[in-house]
Amino acid sequence: MDKRSERVRAARGELPLDTLIENAQIVNVLTGEIYAGAIGIAGGYIAHLGPYNGAGPEPRSRMDAEGKFAVPGLVDTHVHIESSMMSPAGFAAAVLAHGTTTVVIDPHEIGNVLGMRGVRYMLEATAHLPLRVYVQVPSCVPAVPDLETAGAEFGPQEVAEMLTWERVIGLAEVMDYVGVIAQTPRMRGILAAALERGTVISGHAPGVRGRQLAAYLMAGPDSDHEGCEQDELLEKLRLGMAVESRTSSFGDDMAAVGSIVRRLGGTPPNLVMCTDDIFPEDLMQHGHMDWGVRRAIQGGLTPVEALRVASVHGAMRHRLYDLGAIAPGKRADIVLSRSLEEFAADEVWVDGALVARGGRCVVAPPVEPPALESENTVHLPHPPTPADYALPARPGRTWERVRVIKVQPASPILGLEIMALPVREGSLDVGSSDVCLAAVQERHGRTGRRGYALVRGMGLQRGAAASTVAHDSHNLLVIGRNADDMALAANQLAACGGGLCCAEGGRVLALLPLPIAGLMSPLPLAELVPLVQKLSDALRSLGICRAQPISAIVGMALPVIPHYSVTDHGLVDVDNQRIISLWADEE
Amino acid sequence: MDKRSERVRAARGELPLDTLIENAQIVNVLTGEIYAGAIGIAGGYIAHLGPYNGAGPEPRSRMDAEGKFAVPGLVDTHVHIESSMMSPAGFAAAVLAHGTTTVVIDPHEIGNVLGMRGVRYMLEATAHLPLRVYVQVPSCVPAVPDLETAGAEFGPQEVAEMLTWERVIGLAEVMDYVGVIAQTPRMRGILAAALERGTVISGHAPGVRGRQLAAYLMAGPDSDHEGCEQDELLEKLRLGMAVESRTSSFGDDMAAVGSIVRRLGGTPPNLVMCTDDIFPEDLMQHGHMDWGVRRAIQGGLTPVEALRVASVHGAMRHRLYDLGAIAPGKRADIVLSRSLEEFAADEVWVDGALVARGGRCVVAPPVEPPALESENTVHLPHPPTPADYALPARPGRTWERVRVIKVQPASPILGLEIMALPVREGSLDVGSSDVCLAAVQERHGRTGRRGYALVRGMGLQRGAAASTVAHDSHNLLVIGRNADDMALAANQLAACGGGLCCAEGGRVLALLPLPIAGLMSPLPLAELVPLVQKLSDALRSLGICRAQPISAIVGMALPVIPHYSVTDHGLVDVDNQRIISLWADEE
Repeated sequence: MDKRSERVRAARGELPLDTLIENAQIVNVLTGEIYAGAIGIAGGYIAHLGPYNGAGPEPRSRMDAEGKFAVPGLVDTHVHIESSMMSPAGFAAAVLAHGTTTVVIDPHEIGNVLGMRGVRYMLEATAHLPLRVYVQVPSCVPAVPDLETAGAEFGPQEVAEMLTWERVIGLAEVMDYVGVIAQTPRMRGILAAALERGTVISGHAPGVRGRQLAAYLMAGPDSDHEGCEQDELLEKLRLGMAVESRTSSFGDDMAAVGSIVRRLGGTPPNLVMCTDDIFPEDLMQHGHMDWGVRRAIQGGLTPVEALRVASVHGAMRHRLYDLGAIAPGKRADIVLSRSLEEFAADEVWVDGALVARGGRCVVAPPVEPPALESENTVHLPHPPTPADYALPARPGRTWERVRVIKVQPASPILGLEIMALPVREGSLDVGSSDVCLAAVQERHGRTGRRGYALVRGMGLQRGAAASTVAHDSHNLLVIGRNADDMALAANQLAACGGGLCCAEGGRVLALLPLPIAGLMSPLPLAELVPLVQKLSDALRSLGICRAQPISAIVGMALPVIPHYSVTDHGLVDVDNQRIISLWADEE
Repeated sequence: MDKRSERVRAARGELPLDTLIENAQIVNVLTGEIYAGAIGIAGGYIAHLGPYNGAGPEPRSRMDAEGKFAVPGLVDTHVHIESSMMSPAGFAAAVLAHGTTTVVIDPHEIGNVLGMRGVRYMLEATAHLPLRVYVQVPSCVPAVPDLETAGAEFGPQEVAEMLTWERVIGLAEVMDYVGVIAQTPRMRGILAAALERGTVISGHAPGVRGRQLAAYLMAGPDSDHEGCEQDELLEKLRLGMAVESRTSSFGDDMAAVGSIVRRLGGTPPNLVMCTDDIFPEDLMQHGHMDWGVRRAIQGGLTPVEALRVASVHGAMRHRLYDLGAIAPGKRADIVLSRSLEEFAADEVWVDGALVARGGRCVVAPPVEPPALESENTVHLPHPPTPADYALPARPGRTWERVRVIKVQPASPILGLEIMALPVREGSLDVGSSDVCLAAVQERHGRTGRRGYALVRGMGLQRGAAASTVAHDSHNLLVIGRNADDMALAANQLAACGGGLCCAEGGRVLALLPLPIAGLMSPLPLAELVPLVQKLSDALRSLGICRAQPISAIVGMALPVIPHYSVTDHGLVDVDNQRIISLWADEE
C-alpha cells in the first residue's frame, strides 16, 4: 500500500495514528476561532483535527498539550540566512526553537560570492534539515554591474536554469526597481525567465508609489518588504502586493501594520510576514518569526490575526498549499505556546516530528556538512602588506584636496565633503586628521582590483577593522587609521577564510571567523554570539560608538544606498551610478 | 517591444492607457475598503488604480462610471455548463451579462456522453469566448461502473492525459467519496494522476464529517459544495476545505453561510462561491453569480464580504493569480454596479473589453461553432417502436408481484414498494394502476442495452415523457403510461439529436431539442426559455405537479442518489450498488 493510502486509513481510524496531541487549544487561522480539541498525526501529516472519540486502534503515542495553544508552524516569506552569520544548519536549529518551520530564502549574499555554486550549496546544506527551506533565485547579482566586482553575474540564462532546480520556488526580491520600471534589457531578461516559468516574483520597492508602483507590478514583481510608512503599506495592500511585514535587525513595521489592520477591521489576505535580516545577537535576544508575531500583537493585531499573517497567508503567497494551517491533509508543522499574547514556541513539530522544545532544537545537525563549508573563499593576488593600505598622492604634491565620504550619525546614508590632506613619503597622511582610509580588495580571484576612499565621521580613531561581509559583492573591506593594522586585520581574514577582524597597535583585538564563503560561521548561535559581541566591543573600543557597529562597516561598500560608497572600483557616486576621482580637482 | 513592456510603459504614463474608467467607487476586495478612484487599462490588464493625476499622454478612451461601484469580475469555482441547456457560447453570453467573468467548469455530463471528445469540445467551444473558461477533468465517468453504460470510461490514463491539456486546471468534484475514503483502486488511480501533477482536486462530500472527512481530505480532494447545514459547513471550513458556497437551481447555502460569517466576524479565505447547476428559467429569472452575491448579502454578509468570496477567494482557490481583484498587473475583468446591496452588473469588462451592458452581452458569438454541435449523438440500434416499451411478464403469469420505485413528493430520494400488476398479451399492464413504465435505452452506440423499472408517485397520468438528459450516463430515458406515446416521444428525440419530449394520445405536446450531445441547445437564453417552459407545462398537463417537473424526470436514472433508480442495466438498488429483479420473488 502506498504511503498516502496508509495515511487515509489512519485518518479514518483503521490504522493507528502516529501521534495524538490531546488537550490543545486549537488556533484555527482559517476561521479565526480558538477551540479545544485534539490533533492526530500520521505519516508526517495532520490526520485528525477536533474532538477525538477514541474509536479505532490506539495511537502509537499520545501527548498531553496541557491546554497550550496549538498554532501552525510559522512561515517566513523572505529571509537571508547569511545575515544570521550562521550556516544553514545552525540557522535552522536557532529558528526552529522560535517556531519558524518554513523559510523562503534569498541566498543573495552567497550568490554574490560563489554564484550558482553558492545557491546550490544553500540547497544542499538545507536538503536534510528539519527546517523547511525553499529558495528563491537571487535576481540582482551583482547589485550594480560595472561599479563593483562580485564573484558572479546572474543573467537571464543563469536565472532560468536555477528556477528549474528542486525546492526553488521563485525569483527573489527584484531590487533594481529603477531598472524594472525603466525596463532595462537586464531586468527584462531576468523577469522574462521567471514570467515564462510562471513562478512567484518577489519585490523590493522602497518608497515606490503611484504610477511607478503600478508599472513595477505590471512588470512582474508583486511583493514588497521595504515599505514601512503606514500610507505606503496601505497603498501596497490596496494595489494587491503581498506586503511582507517585517521585524528585523533594521527595525520593524508592526506599529504601522497594526494601525492598518485596525483601520481595515481585519487582515487582508495579501498581508504576510518576514524577517529579512536578523543578526545573531537579535536572534538570541528577541527570536525570529515569534518576535514578529509578538510585535504585531503589540502593534494592535489580535493574536489570531498575527498568527494568520505569520502562517497561512505566507504559505498561500508562496503557493505552498500543504502548509500554513493545522488541517487534515496538510503537513504536521505545529507549534505549542502557553500564551498567545506572549507567544513563544514551547514545542515545535515539523512533518509530525518534535524538533524543538523549551527554546532548544532537539534534532542533531547533519553529520556531514557540505564540502564547500571547509573551502577558503578569500582569493587574493598576494598576502596583504602595509603598502597595500597606503594611498599614493599625485607626483610632486605636498597636499591633496580630496573627496571624503561623510558618515552621518544613525543613518546609512553617506554624504561627501572636500578636505585637504598632507602627503608624506608620497602617500596621503590621515594621521593628523580624523579621516580613515577605506580599501576594498576584490577577493573572488577574478581581478584582484583594489579601490580606495577616504571616510570621515565613522568614529574610528585608532587601528583598523576588516570584513569580508561587505554588501553586496562581499569583497575584502578594510577601514583604518593605520596601514600596519589594516594589513594585519586583512591577513587574519585571508588566513581564516573571512569574517570580521579588529586590530590595533599590531595586535588583533577581536576575530570573528566566518569561514563559510566569508559570510557564515559553522558555530551554533550560543557560541557565535559571544564572538560577535567581542568584535562589536572591539569596534566600539576603537571609537565606533553605534548600537550596531558591525552594520556601519558592512554597509560601506553598498553602491545602491545614497549618496556615496566605496567598491573595488573606487569611490562611487551612487546617485549618478559612476566612479569618481578621489581628487577634488578631477571628475 | 514586447507587450508586457508596452503595458509597463502605459502604467508609468509614458504610453497612453487604452481606457480610463473615471469616477468609480472602487470595491477593494483585498483591503475591504470602498473608495473613489479611477481604473486604467492597458493591453487588457489593470494599469492604474486610484487617483488619476492626468500626467502623461491622454488615454485612448475615457469612461465616466458615474459613481457606480467597480468590482472584480465574479469567479464561479464550480459549474456544469450543461445544466443551463445552452451551448458554451450561449451560456457565456447569458452569464457575462450577470457579471460572471470566469468559470471553472466540470464537463461531466458531456464527458459521460462523448468521453474525451466531449471534454475537448468544451475546450474548443470556449477557446474564443469573452468568458474566461477553465476546465476540470471529470473524475467519475461513469458515476458507477457496472451499473450503467455511459458513453465513455475515464480511468487514470485518460485523466492524466486530459490534465495536460491547455486551460485544464484540475480534477473535478470527486463524487465517489465512498471509494475515495475506502481507497478503491479506481479512485486511487484517478487521484494519483492528479496528485502527481500537483493540480487542484475538487471534492463532493455531502454529509461527510469527522474522521471520514479527514480521510477524504487526506486522500486529495479539498473542496466541497454539497454541504448545506451550518454545522457541516463550519466543520469543513475549520478543516481547511474550500467551501464552495452554492446558489443553484437546487437551493442555496447562503442563510447558513451568512450565520457562519457573522459568527466568525469575517470571511475565511477558504470560503468561495459557485453555482453548480442553474437551469435556464432560473438563469433568466434570478441570474448567475450575481444571484449568489445578492443571496449572500441577504444571508448576512456585507456586500464587500460577499464580493470578496465571489471573486478573489475563488481565484486564489483555483490558483488563478492574475484574476479576482482590481489591481495593477491583473487582468482587467471589471463589473460596474449601481448598487451594492442590490448588486447587478450594469457594465462588464473582460480583458479590458466591454462585453456586457444593461444585462445584455454585447459581443457577437463565434461565427463558426465546432463541428460536434451539428452531430446527432443519439445512437440507437433501431428506431424505437411501441414493442420496446412493453414489459414482458414471465411465461404463464396472469399477475406479477413487482418491485415499484416510489417517488416521494418534493424529494429526490426514491423508495420502493411491492405491488401486483395484471398481465395482458404477455406484458405487464399498468393501465388500471397509477404506475408508469420507465425504460432506459443505451444511446451511445455501444451496447443498445435497455433496462426497465416501474415507477409510482411521479404524478404522470397519461402519455409519455422522454429525455436524453438522464444523469449521469444520459441514456434515452422514457417514462410513460402508454407504449405508443413512449415510442413517439423517443422517436422525436432520436430524430432531433436528443432533448426532452412530451407526447400524449399520439401527439407531441412539446419538444425541447437539445441537439448538442443530447444535452444542450444552440439557442440563446431568451429563445430557449419559452421552449423549456412549454415542455414543463406539458409535463404538468400530464400530471407531474412539481415546481421543476424536468428535474423529476432527469434524476430518475442516477444510480448514486438513495435508494433506487433505473439504468440501462435495470432496477438499481443504490444502497447496495447492485441490480435487482423487477419480480418481487426474485433477487
